Amino acid sequence: MSHKLNTPKGTRDFSSLELKKRNYLLKVLRDSFKSFNFQEIQTPSFENLSTLTDKYGDEEDSLMFKILSSGEKVKKADISSLNDGKLSKFANSISDKALRYDLTVPLSRFVQQNLNEITLPFKRFQTQLVWRADRPQKGRYREFLQCDVDIIGEKNFLNEVECIKVYDHVFENLGLPKLVLRINNREILEGISKIMNLESLSEISSTLDKSDKIGIDGVVDELSKKGMKTKSIDKLIFLLNIKGSNKSKIDLVRKEFNSKNIPSNAIDSIEEIINTCNQFKLNNIEIEFDLSLARGLGYYTGTIVEVSSPKDFSLGSIGGGGRYDDLVQKNNPKLSGFGISFGFDRIFLILEELNLFPNLLDSSKSFLFLNFGTDKISYFIDSVNQLRKDCIVCEIYPVDVKIKKQLDYANKKGIDFVVIIGDDELKKDIFKVKDMSKGDELTFMQIDSLAEKIKEIS
Amino acid sequence: MSHKLNTPKGTRDFSSLELKKRNYLLKVLRDSFKSFNFQEIQTPSFENLSTLTDKYGDEEDSLMFKILSSGEKVKKADISSLNDGKLSKFANSISDKALRYDLTVPLSRFVQQNLNEITLPFKRFQTQLVWRADRPQKGRYREFLQCDVDIIGEKNFLNEVECIKVYDHVFENLGLPKLVLRINNREILEGISKIMNLESLSEISSTLDKSDKIGIDGVVDELSKKGMKTKSIDKLIFLLNIKGSNKSKIDLVRKEFNSKNIPSNAIDSIEEIINTCNQFKLNNIEIEFDLSLARGLGYYTGTIVEVSSPKDFSLGSIGGGGRYDDLVQKNNPKLSGFGISFGFDRIFLILEELNLFPNLLDSSKSFLFLNFGTDKISYFIDSVNQLRKDCIVCEIYPVDVKIKKQLDYANKKGIDFVVIIGDDELKKDIFKVKDMSKGDELTFMQIDSLAEKIKEIS
Repeated sequence: MSHKLNTPKGTRDFSSLELKKRNYLLKVLRDSFKSFNFQEIQTPSFENLSTLTDKYGDEEDSLMFKILSSGEKVKKADISSLNDGKLSKFANSISDKALRYDLTVPLSRFVQQNLNEITLPFKRFQTQLVWRADRPQKGRYREFLQCDVDIIGEKNFLNEVECIKVYDHVFENLGLPKLVLRINNREILEGISKIMNLESLSEISSTLDKSDKIGIDGVVDELSKKGMKTKSIDKLIFLLNIKGSNKSKIDLVRKEFNSKNIPSNAIDSIEEIINTCNQFKLNNIEIEFDLSLARGLGYYTGTIVEVSSPKDFSLGSIGGGGRYDDLVQKNNPKLSGFGISFGFDRIFLILEELNLFPNLLDSSKSFLFLNFGTDKISYFIDSVNQLRKDCIVCEIYPVDVKIKKQLDYANKKGIDFVVIIGDDELKKDIFKVKDMSKGDELTFMQIDSLAEKIKEIS
Repeated sequence: MSHKLNTPKGTRDFSSLELKKRNYLLKVLRDSFKSFNFQEIQTPSFENLSTLTDKYGDEEDSLMFKILSSGEKVKKADISSLNDGKLSKFANSISDKALRYDLTVPLSRFVQQNLNEITLPFKRFQTQLVWRADRPQKGRYREFLQCDVDIIGEKNFLNEVECIKVYDHVFENLGLPKLVLRINNREILEGISKIMNLESLSEISSTLDKSDKIGIDGVVDELSKKGMKTKSIDKLIFLLNIKGSNKSKIDLVRKEFNSKNIPSNAIDSIEEIINTCNQFKLNNIEIEFDLSLARGLGYYTGTIVEVSSPKDFSLGSIGGGGRYDDLVQKNNPKLSGFGISFGFDRIFLILEELNLFPNLLDSSKSFLFLNFGTDKISYFIDSVNQLRKDCIVCEIYPVDVKIKKQLDYANKKGIDFVVIIGDDELKKDIFKVKDMSKGDELTFMQIDSLAEKIKEIS
């Protein structure tokens, strides 16, 4: 090959060792989800564009990987849109599918399509890849694994609490330090917009969403540039700067809302969630009511949550979620949803840096049968067949090259034991087992007893 | 929603029940691969087009799902190619990536990229999705799971034998009836082309590849239409029609080759593989030397194999593979590859129809804690937390609606036991556990002992 081959930008290969770690993390997540009786579903990697678009927001829509229509269908290319610079319209003329951007919108399509078969409240988990044409950076990839639990059914704050408890359960099982989960509610943000005399929440939410990156000063700057009145900004900053316990924050916001006659159900709901979480005894999560939390995705309508990475990690959030009343069906209170997502790759990085992966990711021992000629294999193939049936890892070196080369292979591959049955051993009806880490070599009588002896060792 | 939402053509959702079955099959495959000491890798879902194209063949290239370049990049659209009807060239002007078409070409890219890190012979397994814009039909989807084992290293027939033994091991573990594995060699097909005075193998291989669908008569028809001489066709039909044991077929082909001075290493190799397979004691596989086997993919250069579905299933092959000398690196005898693939979805259909899935796919019992008001949850939440840590499936009904509705939910979801702690029970410090399948209700003393008692039941 003349040119260097690579994985596409923002994507990765995984080696066997990395996968052992990834499979460990995935198992902790999946076992946790199961212990809360979430049921697994899987959806296709791509969805019809009509399913995906106009759910997340314009910026997010532009980050979807669209799939080019195949064969003759590209003839439908809308050249005039291309010439007019309407690139998105042009793209949609030759594409009707895109790789999934998250797991929530596919879930909502699944629920709509299978309403007659599923039992409400529908508690599902899903651990699949998602794709975003984002700028890659540490802990952010263009292909990454998302692990979600969601509950679709009547709106009930206990669903929020159960999902927060799932976070707590997983983080505790992984041995992570105590993490902060920030909570807010889109309706509270709407209320704040009203207090500020804004037309809609969207005028400030994209700015707020950046507040943990650009700080309060940055928020002020950006809102001023957007032409927002100083008085409004001051009000916002006053609200964002409320310090103290969750209770004191809730009290202050409630007072503010009451004085402007803004309904405060959302504040009651936050209070109920926080109180019930206390009752549920979270071990690994500290909840913090944070008025600056906005969350980017367009479909959230109520509670929103986000888990920050531990202090000293500049990885951003390692999980987040929220309530979406209208995603499955508009104005159907029986099909409100709440769900959370785990940022698998960022959690992986944290486990790695904090040395939290178990030492023994794979306890099964491996055996390499040295090759002294194909004709000798028949003396031990029955044993190998039997051992493999018992899930004991056995490998036969594929060719009778020099023993040194075969041992070298065993060393490099991290084989635990090497089994030696050459001419000498056959003559004496014995076999030798060499422990590759210690260097010891044991001799056993009777090749017949091979499977039995190796089972004892393994 | 005004329009009906669906999964894209040729793709599927999987429900929790289907996934339990799929996860069972996947586990049998993965455990088998591990017991032969294949090491797992994963590669990205899409690859650069330059990695994928010109490896499989023109028809296959046209079935790849290409990914549209994002943002401004679509401005590079080559409109003149579109106008000239050069659709593939047009497509490539606005796409530089495609979803992977199989797992072998990504593996070859992986090996090239990581040559310094891997140990040869490199035995890897990979169980990931692949995508083909094929016409969907029974057992054929546009997104499907492929499960592959491959060995990259020096060419050695024992690698073929080990992989065939993996087929045998898996099919036996799944309880499938004896299956026929057809074997041939691309070099033998080349030899036959020479006998027929053809310029290249490709003139007949695409026709041969259809022989199990269109029959020998169909092959004759198609080759005549392609303008092939009757004498050549007769010779081909003579070879294809050789009946009898593998040995007699091998002898006849060898005689034919010798008389034309065509090297017969490939025939020796087939013979060695078949003999060594006998030595390896296959339980579930019968090997049949089949000169009509061609295999579609362009990268095969030596041994090719294919496993047919059991008699009475018109599903086509459920697995196939072959040797590729030049895919990883041209003319590097140290990097020849042999690998096989399992057609997960077709095997799934066969297990389903033959009733071969275990009855008990999930042995863990589930418990639903009825909701008599959020204030009561604190009496049992510690126990629930403890049980979930022990991986016992516990669920709390999210709202204190009528008990009938909660029991209805338990029934529909297939919950095994319902736990009852209402006012009455709290007063008496007792709890009740109802067995949902039998209808029995047991009463236990001391709510403190909840976790302990439920562990005994589960």
